[in-house]
Amino acid sequence: MAELGGFQDNVARIDLSDGKVNYEPIDEEDAKKYIGARGLGVKYVFEQGPDVDPLGPDNLLAFMNGPLSGTQVTMSGRIAICTKSPLTGTVTDSHHGGWSGARLKWAGFDGLLFEGEADEPVYAYVEDGEVELRDASHLWGKGVHETRDTIEEEVDGSYGKNLSIMAIGPGGENGVRYACIMNEDDRASGRGGTGCVAGSKNLKAVVVKSNTRMPQPADSETFTEGHQQAMQAIQESEVTAPNEGGLSMYGTNVLMNVTEEMSGLPTKNAEYTSTRDAVDAGEAELDSERVSGENVRENILVDEPTCHSCPVACKKEVEVDVMHKGEEMNVRMESYEYESAWALGPNSMNDDRDKVALMIDRCNDMGVDTIETGNILAMGMELTEEGYLEDLGDGIQWGDADEMVEMIERIAHREDDLADLLAEGQQRVAEELDAHECRLDVKGQAIAAYDPRCMKGMGIAYATSNRGACHLRGYTPAAEILGIPEKVDPYEWEGKGELTAEFQDLHAISDSFDICKFNAFAEGIEEYVTQYNGMTGLDVTEDELMKAGERIYTLERYYNNLAGFDGSDDTLPERFLEDGIRGQGASEGEYCELEEMKEEYYDHRGWVDGVVPDEKLDELEIEIGPGTGVSSEDGATAAGDD
Amino acid sequence: MAELGGFQDNVARIDLSDGKVNYEPIDEEDAKKYIGARGLGVKYVFEQGPDVDPLGPDNLLAFMNGPLSGTQVTMSGRIAICTKSPLTGTVTDSHHGGWSGARLKWAGFDGLLFEGEADEPVYAYVEDGEVELRDASHLWGKGVHETRDTIEEEVDGSYGKNLSIMAIGPGGENGVRYACIMNEDDRASGRGGTGCVAGSKNLKAVVVKSNTRMPQPADSETFTEGHQQAMQAIQESEVTAPNEGGLSMYGTNVLMNVTEEMSGLPTKNAEYTSTRDAVDAGEAELDSERVSGENVRENILVDEPTCHSCPVACKKEVEVDVMHKGEEMNVRMESYEYESAWALGPNSMNDDRDKVALMIDRCNDMGVDTIETGNILAMGMELTEEGYLEDLGDGIQWGDADEMVEMIERIAHREDDLADLLAEGQQRVAEELDAHECRLDVKGQAIAAYDPRCMKGMGIAYATSNRGACHLRGYTPAAEILGIPEKVDPYEWEGKGELTAEFQDLHAISDSFDICKFNAFAEGIEEYVTQYNGMTGLDVTEDELMKAGERIYTLERYYNNLAGFDGSDDTLPERFLEDGIRGQGASEGEYCELEEMKEEYYDHRGWVDGVVPDEKLDELEIEIGPGTGVSSEDGATAAGDD
Repeated sequence: MAELGGFQDNVARIDLSDGKVNYEPIDEEDAKKYIGARGLGVKYVFEQGPDVDPLGPDNLLAFMNGPLSGTQVTMSGRIAICTKSPLTGTVTDSHHGGWSGARLKWAGFDGLLFEGEADEPVYAYVEDGEVELRDASHLWGKGVHETRDTIEEEVDGSYGKNLSIMAIGPGGENGVRYACIMNEDDRASGRGGTGCVAGSKNLKAVVVKSNTRMPQPADSETFTEGHQQAMQAIQESEVTAPNEGGLSMYGTNVLMNVTEEMSGLPTKNAEYTSTRDAVDAGEAELDSERVSGENVRENILVDEPTCHSCPVACKKEVEVDVMHKGEEMNVRMESYEYESAWALGPNSMNDDRDKVALMIDRCNDMGVDTIETGNILAMGMELTEEGYLEDLGDGIQWGDADEMVEMIERIAHREDDLADLLAEGQQRVAEELDAHECRLDVKGQAIAAYDPRCMKGMGIAYATSNRGACHLRGYTPAAEILGIPEKVDPYEWEGKGELTAEFQDLHAISDSFDICKFNAFAEGIEEYVTQYNGMTGLDVTEDELMKAGERIYTLERYYNNLAGFDGSDDTLPERFLEDGIRGQGASEGEYCELEEMKEEYYDHRGWVDGVVPDEKLDELEIEIGPGTGVSSEDGATAAGDD
Repeated sequence: MAELGGFQDNVARIDLSDGKVNYEPIDEEDAKKYIGARGLGVKYVFEQGPDVDPLGPDNLLAFMNGPLSGTQVTMSGRIAICTKSPLTGTVTDSHHGGWSGARLKWAGFDGLLFEGEADEPVYAYVEDGEVELRDASHLWGKGVHETRDTIEEEVDGSYGKNLSIMAIGPGGENGVRYACIMNEDDRASGRGGTGCVAGSKNLKAVVVKSNTRMPQPADSETFTEGHQQAMQAIQESEVTAPNEGGLSMYGTNVLMNVTEEMSGLPTKNAEYTSTRDAVDAGEAELDSERVSGENVRENILVDEPTCHSCPVACKKEVEVDVMHKGEEMNVRMESYEYESAWALGPNSMNDDRDKVALMIDRCNDMGVDTIETGNILAMGMELTEEGYLEDLGDGIQWGDADEMVEMIERIAHREDDLADLLAEGQQRVAEELDAHECRLDVKGQAIAAYDPRCMKGMGIAYATSNRGACHLRGYTPAAEILGIPEKVDPYEWEGKGELTAEFQDLHAISDSFDICKFNAFAEGIEEYVTQYNGMTGLDVTEDELMKAGERIYTLERYYNNLAGFDGSDDTLPERFLEDGIRGQGASEGEYCELEEMKEEYYDHRGWVDGVVPDEKLDELEIEIGPGTGVSSEDGATAAGDD
């Protein structure tokens, strides 16, 4: 591995069952094929076998950085957490920002692989090439914030300065299937239940102390040239330009007013596609502007911190004093994100700006995913309205912000029967109650803040995402809303299959670098490849790098195939589809042409009804597992049968 | 030192006389007081005693990086080479860009201190915390380019990718007093004769192989905040904005047309202050536009490479095919700098663009300073015209480009009596021939491309520079030409003493970080202090950091005082002064009000006629050496006597 820059050539495999730590080199061929972070992490998870119990000791929980992590590359502080998801049953990867990915690299590691189950709660302490397991009994039951503070007092280091603390809260401890792993300052590996897996392993936290082991570019000149191109592109982008671009000014929540305006904002569990339509239809007074980035900036913004090496500073730190249960609570947090504000806001018929801040903070402290939590609360409101929850008390009423705050804590602790049910996630709730018309998930994971009836690309992206419904696996809103790399008609379905596949591959690359997806608002494959070649010393072409992205995406799909998923799982909540069409206002009569897009998508991918044929595995040189036994000749037939 | 980020806490002291290498920690108090790079380097040189023979074994040659070297900080690839100058007899520091400073840090060192003299030529090979001396007999006599290529073949590493090679050419070997040390791709520690010192020690080169030991910020959040502020400022500056600002578009040579236009371009050994005036006065046809950055960009630009972590890319790589002595020569080089082009161009009555490229390339390969070489050639032309050189052959004619190319090689080899004389530098030539009216130096070092009759601040800056005439110790053209931080009238003398002192202190800080001065076209002390605090973990104020800049500048002055320099050495070439006023065209009748500015300057500094009083040493907590024995009470008198 001496030949390949960007790696420490050191991964720690920690068996929590017996406490043993082994240090392994990275396989150079794997590093070339799967880049790092997400790509390598998924491969490690795959090697455990796709049929492991997500909450059993055989499941692997991999914390992986990539060859660009912690470098001068813009927004390169990220880390990928890969595992088999207890929410979806698919392989999943969930990233967060801040500095933990950078610090793990600087501490001498490309990754940490946790397997087994500890008898008692532990946390892992990582410093200067060593991993040590420490007792965490005194931390069990604590929220994320208190866990962080307690650990900071115990170790030599300063939180936010040279110490990253990734921790679970009660959500993960209590097996909430969408529990997340939180990192410094409200950064979340939110989706897919990585925190639930950590909890099942009795792993309370991973603590990383910075060291000075930063890989240097193998080819400094090429690397710096790429860095310069990237910085230039970021500066010139209307989205990312520091202190000018929308993302820099308002954070992700710049999108709230935009999607409301274009009727792409799922409202009231996606009955409407804007709060305006909801009000027009006679619903309670509701205005998404109140929870928008503009409103937040004008009224409650107190700081704009950044992650490692980030010129954009999308983090918008807010402070509110909010009354809850007759008590004034002060909340200061920095993740008033668009998707969180949507899920806990308009989709739940709530537009109380400050209480949304409180809810996000509660989710973060309890360690549950804001998107999934907001969705399950909205679903719970609809279930209540429809009478499904009559056996479980009063249920939860549309837009009842105080009740929502309560429910977050109740779910995290699985405090009662209703909370215990909702902690299972939308798919299991729908199955339990036979209430499939109320669910907004794909493969068990709920959608994000983009309505696929009004942004058709998002429909095929949700459906084909390997980790369940997800806006980040193929971020078509870049093209459908922001016009990047070029503007496409959000209501047109044609071409969206290909567009989605291309975004998926591109994001698989950046997730494997591991750099923030926001780079892609400004950069393309050219900047990616120059920086990657500069760091690693490789000389790959743009096509070869895109092929690596396709390889990673296909590896995940192949894993899912072996775990029992096929094209029938690439679907959408029924209210978005022609047969189950439902919606009022702008979305009335609109549906997502999923089947047409799937045909185009599978055709582009060379998949057979959602399954990777053996020829494709050969073409991409994926050499793990038994093959799916499907050939692309079957594919021609299958596609014709669609 | 564990407390202070940005340092490796490791300096190698290499005794070339016996080949022994000792590894020393950095003194933490020194690091706080003198920052690093230039500041610490000067202190190490000081500790050898200010009375050492610059070319004797007791002189120290220190290669120093600083706490921000090689980090994400913009333009932080620099290194300071500090020694007692054989050209001036003062302490000197000379920096170059590229990656060598970064690589030395990454290899585990804050600095390399060379003392003694090797019996046979050697080079130092640095990798992963170790320094090794290797035989360089086979390299002796070789030019810089061939030296570089030969070493690259011998060692495991790739030049420009992970290997920095700092080398001297024949100039340094043959004791040319203004021989420089060259670094990758035409970067020069040009001034003050550092290469001459290396040659006297039989040290042919210092080779640094990158390693991964990069200090991480002690306070990541503060550091990243500062980094973001800096990147933003660079982007917004009309000078530095990537692909927009003048420096980014045309490199340093953006100034050629500007200074010509404002009559600030010394022409014909500073008889005129523009080529226009020279032509008007009946001189040979001459136009500085032909060697301007605009002309270069339009006609011979082939690439725009960068140094480590630089968004500006001021390097303008050119390629020319040029006839020399009946032979077509291909030249590709990347340092068509303003000062080089001026010295070898208009000041020598030459405007042959492509031959200027050839001359710069020859200077680089021979390892002699372009500024000093151009100046000595111009002086030689005036000496020839005035008949001073009649005993030494035909001398050299104004604007004879072919002869200039020849002379560069002759000087580097001290090939004949004339070359041998010119290799001594302006001061010694003037003394030898009693031709003081022809010299353009201060303290033995020649001026740069800014005429102090039309930019008064440059006059006081040249005069009070601790390393002899220098545009970079207090870069008043920032204010006088570019209006940074605010526009001041270049013809006004009042306020320039203070302005110069402030620039000197600010540059002492950036030279000690060690980051490129070009940051200062966009940033100020605020960005500096935030990044410095973030990296080191200190919590110094802006005032404290400025005080450190003053301390470093004062330490140098104090060294010079002990070496015999006082206010009488803070002077200017006589043609710039009222008594010796000389000039035609715009500069006719103009002179530099040096004495008035010196009074203001010393008053601001609290110095007594150029000497640091003991009270000032106490105030700045400079605790080295015996004190100057001067008190500021003397100062009041001395100032009154001026």
